[in-house]
Amino acid sequence: MKLTDIDTPAVLIDTDRAEANLQKFQTYADNHALTVRPHIKTHKLPRFAKRAIELGAIGITCQKLGEAEVMADAGMSDIFIPYNIIGKAKLERLAKLNERITISVTADNETAIRGYAEAFAGRKKPLTVLVECDTGMGRCGVQSPQEAVALAKLIDASEGLNFAGFMTYPKTGGIETTQAFLAEAEKLAIAAGLDPHTISNGGTPDMWRAHEVASATEHRPGTYIYMDLFQVAKGAGTLDDCALTVLATVVSRPTENRAIIDAGSKSLTSDTLGLSGFGRVVEYPDAVISSLSEEHGTIDLSACQHKPKVGERIRIIPNHACVVSNLFDSVVLISGDTVTEIAPVAARGRVD
Amino acid sequence: MKLTDIDTPAVLIDTDRAEANLQKFQTYADNHALTVRPHIKTHKLPRFAKRAIELGAIGITCQKLGEAEVMADAGMSDIFIPYNIIGKAKLERLAKLNERITISVTADNETAIRGYAEAFAGRKKPLTVLVECDTGMGRCGVQSPQEAVALAKLIDASEGLNFAGFMTYPKTGGIETTQAFLAEAEKLAIAAGLDPHTISNGGTPDMWRAHEVASATEHRPGTYIYMDLFQVAKGAGTLDDCALTVLATVVSRPTENRAIIDAGSKSLTSDTLGLSGFGRVVEYPDAVISSLSEEHGTIDLSACQHKPKVGERIRIIPNHACVVSNLFDSVVLISGDTVTEIAPVAARGRVD
Repeated sequence: MKLTDIDTPAVLIDTDRAEANLQKFQTYADNHALTVRPHIKTHKLPRFAKRAIELGAIGITCQKLGEAEVMADAGMSDIFIPYNIIGKAKLERLAKLNERITISVTADNETAIRGYAEAFAGRKKPLTVLVECDTGMGRCGVQSPQEAVALAKLIDASEGLNFAGFMTYPKTGGIETTQAFLAEAEKLAIAAGLDPHTISNGGTPDMWRAHEVASATEHRPGTYIYMDLFQVAKGAGTLDDCALTVLATVVSRPTENRAIIDAGSKSLTSDTLGLSGFGRVVEYPDAVISSLSEEHGTIDLSACQHKPKVGERIRIIPNHACVVSNLFDSVVLISGDTVTEIAPVAARGRVD
Repeated sequence: MKLTDIDTPAVLIDTDRAEANLQKFQTYADNHALTVRPHIKTHKLPRFAKRAIELGAIGITCQKLGEAEVMADAGMSDIFIPYNIIGKAKLERLAKLNERITISVTADNETAIRGYAEAFAGRKKPLTVLVECDTGMGRCGVQSPQEAVALAKLIDASEGLNFAGFMTYPKTGGIETTQAFLAEAEKLAIAAGLDPHTISNGGTPDMWRAHEVASATEHRPGTYIYMDLFQVAKGAGTLDDCALTVLATVVSRPTENRAIIDAGSKSLTSDTLGLSGFGRVVEYPDAVISSLSEEHGTIDLSACQHKPKVGERIRIIPNHACVVSNLFDSVVLISGDTVTEIAPVAARGRVD
C-alpha cells in the first residue's frame, strides 16, 4: 500500500524516525547510567512500548490507569503511573492491576496515601509508592523536601505500601532547582532511615541534560519518540526527527492567499504550547496555519511563492504530537512512502 | 444509578436541558417560518438527531462524510454535508450514501464540482449541491455573489448534479453582510433562470436573530443543544441552559490556592475561543482553571472563600462543548442527579 492510497485527514508515523529517536535516547541514557522509563502517552501503541523495552527501557510510564490496563493487556510487566489515584473504583482497578504486574504510583498528599493504604492493607502484594515533588513546574507535587520526606515516612509506615523514592515532572529549563530539591529530599529520606532507591525525572525538552539532575536514577521521556514543533523549538530535536505528521487535503482556495484544509482542531488540536500557528506545512514551509475550527484548517499563503491547488495533499508537523495521537482511532505506519501497517491507537481515549 | 457511581473524568449531559434547548429554537424557527437542520457535530449522538426531527427539524447537518454514514446507519434520511468532498475514495462513499438516503453537499470551487460531476454522471439519482458563500467568516466559500452564481450555473449544467441554492456559515455579528450577500446571490441566480430554493444559514451565536437574514430558508444551529461558555458569552443562552458538564475529581492541593483535577486538555480541550481560562467550575464560580496539561487541570483558588479538598468532585462547563464530545467514547445522560443511561458517542472521531 502506498501513501497515495490513504485518505485524509490521517496521522502518519515514520517508523524509521521513531526507531532512531528511541535508540538515540536509550544510548544517551546508557552512557550516563540512567534508566529509561518512557511515557506511552505520546504514541499510545503497544508496539512502541515493547520496542523501547527491547532497546533497554526498564518499564513504561502511563498517565492514567486506563492506559496502564491497555498496556498490561499488551504484555507490559512494569508500569509506573505518576498520578494520585483517588476513589474506590480506581483503587479497586489498581489493586487488580498490581496483582498481575509490577505497578508503582505517586502521592503528593495524605488523602491519596490513606486511600492506597486502605485499599492495599492485608493484600499479599504491597503497592509501590513514590512521592511526587513540585520542583518548579507548578502542577502536582509537594512544595518542599521536608514535606516530601514527611509523606515518605507515612507511606513507609503504612501496611500494604512500599516507599520507593521520589518523582518529579520538572519545569523546562529548571535543571538546577530540580536537582537541588531531589538531592535534599534524598538526603533527608536517608537520614530518616528510608531507602529512596528510585528518583524519577521526566520530560523531553531537557532530556539531553537529564544527567545534570545527578540525583535522578531514571528518566521518563514521552514526546521524544515522535518529536513535534514544540520540542524542536526547545532544541530537543530537529524537524528531521519529527516522526508524526498529519496528512491533509486542500479542499478550498477561496482567495489568492487562503487555503482551507480538511484538518482542523479535531485533527491537529488547538494546542499552541506558546507557539504561533497550528503546525508546519512540510511542503510549504512559508505557509502559516493561522486558525482552526473543528473540521477546517485555515492557511495563510501570503509568504508562499508557490501555492497549493484544491485537491493537493500536504503533511503537517503539529505543535504537540501527543494530543494528536489521542484524536485518531488508528495511525498509518510508514517507511518512506510505503504504508507498512494501519495500527489502532490502543490506549486512545483512556481518560480515567 | 446515581451520579456518585460515575467515575471521573466523565461527560454529563443534562437531558432535560438539552430537550428544552432543542424545543426553544424549534419554536422560534416555526414562528419565523425558518426550517431547522441541526448540526450533529456538537453531540454526535443518534438519539438527539432523531429527537430534533421529531420536534420538526427537516433533516440534519454533518460536517464529515464519516459522521453522515453513522447517522444514516442510525436511521437519518436527509443529511446535508456543507463541505467540499474531494478525492475518489470519498466520492465513492458519497455516491453510496446518496443511493441510501437524501444527501446534499456544498462546493465553493470548480475542482470540487467537476469531481462531483465525474462521480455522479450516469447515476440514477443525482447529487444535490449548494454553493458555499463566504459572507464574512473568512473560511471556505466564494467571495462574491457573482462567483456564487457562476458556480451555480456550472452545477446546473453538470450531468448528475442538481443545483439547490446557497449556504453560508456566517461571521458572528455579521447579520447585515450575510443577508446582503445571500439576497444578491439569490437575485442573480433567479435572473439566470436557476432555482435557489434552499438558502442555508448557520451558527448558534446569532441564532435568535436568524430571521433577520431574511433570504435564508433554513438555519443550522449546532452548539445550541448543549450550550457552553462561549455561547453564554455571546448571549445565545445562559449558564442554566448549559447541558454538558465535565465531572472531575480534585486529585491534589499542593498549595493553599492551587487545586489539580483529573481533567486536562484530553477532557476539556485547549480551546479557549477567546475566553480566559478553560471552563467554569459550577460549585466554585470564583475558581479559575488557569492551565491544562493533557491529564491535569490546574485551578487557581485565590478568589475562592471556600476551597475544595482532595477527593472532592466538581463539575465544569467547558468553553466549547462540541470538542469535548469528540474526546469521550461515551457520555453519561442524567436527569437531575439520576443517571438514566451511558451512551456511546456514535459519531466520535469520524475525521474523514
